[in-house]
Amino acid sequence: MRNASNNEIKLLRKLNRKKYREKEQRFVVEGERAVEQVVENGLLDVETVFVQERFKVQDVRFKEIEVCVLEDEIFAEVADTDNPQGILAVCAMPDEIQYEQLADESGIIVATDAIQDPGNMGTILRTAAWFGAKALIAGKGSVDVYHPKVVRSTAGATGSLPILTGDLEEIFEKLESSGWQIMLLDGGDAAEPLRSVHPNKKTVLVVGNEGNGISEKLLSSGRKKIKIEPAAGQEKVESLNAAIAISIVLWKMSEW
Amino acid sequence: MRNASNNEIKLLRKLNRKKYREKEQRFVVEGERAVEQVVENGLLDVETVFVQERFKVQDVRFKEIEVCVLEDEIFAEVADTDNPQGILAVCAMPDEIQYEQLADESGIIVATDAIQDPGNMGTILRTAAWFGAKALIAGKGSVDVYHPKVVRSTAGATGSLPILTGDLEEIFEKLESSGWQIMLLDGGDAAEPLRSVHPNKKTVLVVGNEGNGISEKLLSSGRKKIKIEPAAGQEKVESLNAAIAISIVLWKMSEW
Repeated sequence: MRNASNNEIKLLRKLNRKKYREKEQRFVVEGERAVEQVVENGLLDVETVFVQERFKVQDVRFKEIEVCVLEDEIFAEVADTDNPQGILAVCAMPDEIQYEQLADESGIIVATDAIQDPGNMGTILRTAAWFGAKALIAGKGSVDVYHPKVVRSTAGATGSLPILTGDLEEIFEKLESSGWQIMLLDGGDAAEPLRSVHPNKKTVLVVGNEGNGISEKLLSSGRKKIKIEPAAGQEKVESLNAAIAISIVLWKMSEW
Repeated sequence: MRNASNNEIKLLRKLNRKKYREKEQRFVVEGERAVEQVVENGLLDVETVFVQERFKVQDVRFKEIEVCVLEDEIFAEVADTDNPQGILAVCAMPDEIQYEQLADESGIIVATDAIQDPGNMGTILRTAAWFGAKALIAGKGSVDVYHPKVVRSTAGATGSLPILTGDLEEIFEKLESSGWQIMLLDGGDAAEPLRSVHPNKKTVLVVGNEGNGISEKLLSSGRKKIKIEPAAGQEKVESLNAAIAISIVLWKMSEW
């Protein structure tokens, strides 16, 4: 084990910002279990592991990965959590999937229309991976999927699902031209109850912003809308959480 | 509108702690939409609404409820959020439901075995209310359902679901004696896949701690275990989030 270099420390500071994550094509995985998971599942290129001085490195299996020590003060500064566990890893960002690669696929694709809460985004990614979704499309206005809190919320599932970012309307038009059907998750009257939705082998499920739902432009595009109905008499509960709603649809579709 | 009294400010300070919430039998709902919701749905006894000096009170429908003004500094101190929206309400804590009241009921009861993340607890409560669960049993080690962040995460559903707190084993034995079946949500080999679970009209669904799952004692009690299986090939995703898992089961049971 060696001490982290100044350049490495500079890099870690930068990776707290989306702009630099994109420029460097790297991101940070923080926490003992999360680092173990990404090392074990081998889905990501883990470049360097950094530990706090007090961290017992022999407790963690790092295999062939280089481990560097960070002074406590610097670790606290670069860590995203208030009470860091003393270990983080820098990983290379996987290449985005191209929509051409999805054209001949079938199954479920999840798309987020301005999901802003990092915990929700991470949970959506984790659940989509669990149910074998083919990709996650993060539309404009969605939180960065490599935001540290999103990565933590995926509980090690980061890297297991191909990611595509961009303008949803553009991407949807291309996918539709290769047979994908877009389904908008929406609580409105025009939406079909999930129970009666007819299965489709190429379905893109769209979940909207936590407070405002799916954007007006998409909602008025004439695409299919589906909803999860409350139990009778439960109208006083306003809505389901976005990650919960999409997860229920993913489960339902896994039954098809 | 009048200024908040010293006693009211003292009370608000206290209500950030569970011990005092229980003693005072009151809790705080924070944020504009959340306060609107609890006022509108009328499920809770909203005693007083407090606003920051800069808050435009005419924008919020308070009906008959008294509104008091708090100095900005004091508001920031008593608020739970880092960037408060300038409005909160003190509500009376509803009485707990007694298990005798559940004996002749049927449907679904949700029980949490040491759910610790307030966001998860709030989401579980919100989803359980949406699907018409009869009650939520918060076992020992579970975060307080009246914790400010839990209340925010319920998105206005606080008060719509009867709550029972206590030792799960004791409560389960009583419920079993009146025909309720306990089902433990667990990823282990002994668990039956959710798809093939036979419906039961009186089911208590138990969800465990985020990291450790359901306690050993309960797991070894011989009660029925159910699980949600991943898609084939997705074994590298470690698990589902606790709130997601219970929500999928709640959906599935709403189909029975």
